[in-house]
Amino acid sequence: VSAALADRVLAGDARAIARAITLIENEDAAGADLVRTIYGRTGRAFLIGLTGPPGAGKSTLVDRLIGDVRRTGKSVGVIAVDPTSPFTGGAVLGDRLRMQAHASDDAVFIRSMATRGHLGGLSRATADAALVLDASGKDIVVIETVGVGQDEVEIVRTADISVVTLVPGAGDDVQALKAGIMEIADIFVVNKADREGADRLVSSIEATLSLQTLEAGEWRPPILKTIATSGAGVSELMSAIELFRQSSAKPRGSLADRRRARGEARFRELLARRFVAYVEAEVLPPKAFESIVDRIASREIDPYTAVAEVLAGVLQLPNYQITKSPNS
Amino acid sequence: VSAALADRVLAGDARAIARAITLIENEDAAGADLVRTIYGRTGRAFLIGLTGPPGAGKSTLVDRLIGDVRRTGKSVGVIAVDPTSPFTGGAVLGDRLRMQAHASDDAVFIRSMATRGHLGGLSRATADAALVLDASGKDIVVIETVGVGQDEVEIVRTADISVVTLVPGAGDDVQALKAGIMEIADIFVVNKADREGADRLVSSIEATLSLQTLEAGEWRPPILKTIATSGAGVSELMSAIELFRQSSAKPRGSLADRRRARGEARFRELLARRFVAYVEAEVLPPKAFESIVDRIASREIDPYTAVAEVLAGVLQLPNYQITKSPNS
Repeated sequence: VSAALADRVLAGDARAIARAITLIENEDAAGADLVRTIYGRTGRAFLIGLTGPPGAGKSTLVDRLIGDVRRTGKSVGVIAVDPTSPFTGGAVLGDRLRMQAHASDDAVFIRSMATRGHLGGLSRATADAALVLDASGKDIVVIETVGVGQDEVEIVRTADISVVTLVPGAGDDVQALKAGIMEIADIFVVNKADREGADRLVSSIEATLSLQTLEAGEWRPPILKTIATSGAGVSELMSAIELFRQSSAKPRGSLADRRRARGEARFRELLARRFVAYVEAEVLPPKAFESIVDRIASREIDPYTAVAEVLAGVLQLPNYQITKSPNS
Repeated sequence: VSAALADRVLAGDARAIARAITLIENEDAAGADLVRTIYGRTGRAFLIGLTGPPGAGKSTLVDRLIGDVRRTGKSVGVIAVDPTSPFTGGAVLGDRLRMQAHASDDAVFIRSMATRGHLGGLSRATADAALVLDASGKDIVVIETVGVGQDEVEIVRTADISVVTLVPGAGDDVQALKAGIMEIADIFVVNKADREGADRLVSSIEATLSLQTLEAGEWRPPILKTIATSGAGVSELMSAIELFRQSSAKPRGSLADRRRARGEARFRELLARRFVAYVEAEVLPPKAFESIVDRIASREIDPYTAVAEVLAGVLQLPNYQITKSPNS
């Protein structure tokens, strides 16, 4: 089954792509098998990360970008990372609404991701879904996130290009700039630029950027104004993305460096998760995992000591010093 | 040094608390030692998680809550989780401004946390900082986060009570509700309630809540209106928090269940991190870690296979089947 699914994904079959991403989202082992199978066929798509606070008009902007990409004949896949609860059903509804405009276009695939698993579940699922779209032959893959969380910022930071979208008058300008996204931007977009305060926001970003010391020849993030609802400024945004892609003046390392950083994050995260799953399933006797958690909760043992004991046991290192204190 | 610091933290010394949190934030081994030492003296504080989108007035609301708590004679510690970059310096500036109002009050400790380490670094540091404040004898510990990221939601979700703050007219109401925070709220606060659209926002929350099936006797999250700048509604919020604290009608489990969930998250995260650090430092020969990452980045090997090989080697299990596929 899995090999057939992989073949259909590689052939660009939209239903197979959707099925593959569902497997990934559900943390089904078949999803991991699939990623393993297709991995060698990835690395060709250009990955655009787009983030910004809620209400910045990111979805509309991405829809406009899709239109622009399609006019150049290229195919595009979109993953909208959305920490929506199934309770509200926002992701599914949003998908349906957004798919409408491009429903008859086979070269466009849009999917929302909403995972509520353990720590890191969302970034893992997003990374794997991007690999699926890449393997399916999409020229451009856009990952759109609500950019205030650490995981979400991490997703966008390791894309081939990071676009940060801000909006005038969304409460306090400084507040928006504070959200850990200033330093990850390769391009700033001030969307809803017809609103009052757009120029003030541009000045505010410029002022903050001016504090940053650029090395000679380093890329200076441009600040673009768009009105996504009308499409104004979108082709300029596409041009800026293309300019960045071709420029050698990259901040935070070359394209190769970023792809390496993605590989490293993926390896660390997977190694950690698989080890914990192994300990839980194979090492600790039934109920022992729960018993440790109970003892931590009741303050009978602290988590550091508990982890040191379990690690020493699993690794059969009786005196492994878990905390390498420079003082000890 | 560490034992002396622990003693001073336990005595409530503000400078020692600040120093301890800095060690934790810097991922210094002495920070872990400290938490290990004080852990048995924690579990007494009541932990309030407060989240909401940027611009919802969370800081002002927390300042008002501090005032209210102090009038009852209780001490309070605040951790403002802020994924701010050091580049903008927002956290430090914010701290200074906020500390002013309570600078002469020894029973109040306020600290912003901004960690940009590996995945999970922020939630780990926040959890440990909360333990420090707990051990220092603070009766109430407030963790304030910008609630759109998965990590941040996780931090608040496992608090003893979760307060979700929304604000009228912050773009699209549905957007605000979508951000994965609907289902974690024990109390909703509509702040800036003198703004246009406040009643519409309350209705919108009520409508969404009405879709949720409550079990008999289950806590129904109240929706409170506040104007943090004037203090209106803040004492009602404190009453609601107290009511929840005393009520047995808790959603998502009892206080003990939540504390157990915090213990479990802490144990899993620490076990994972320590294992990866061990593999990197002790198992893989120099350069081998980097070489694996290079091979993943160049598509020579997929991350799943790489992890399976490393795990099998470390655990000395030649045929350990890493992916437990139901199909294989």
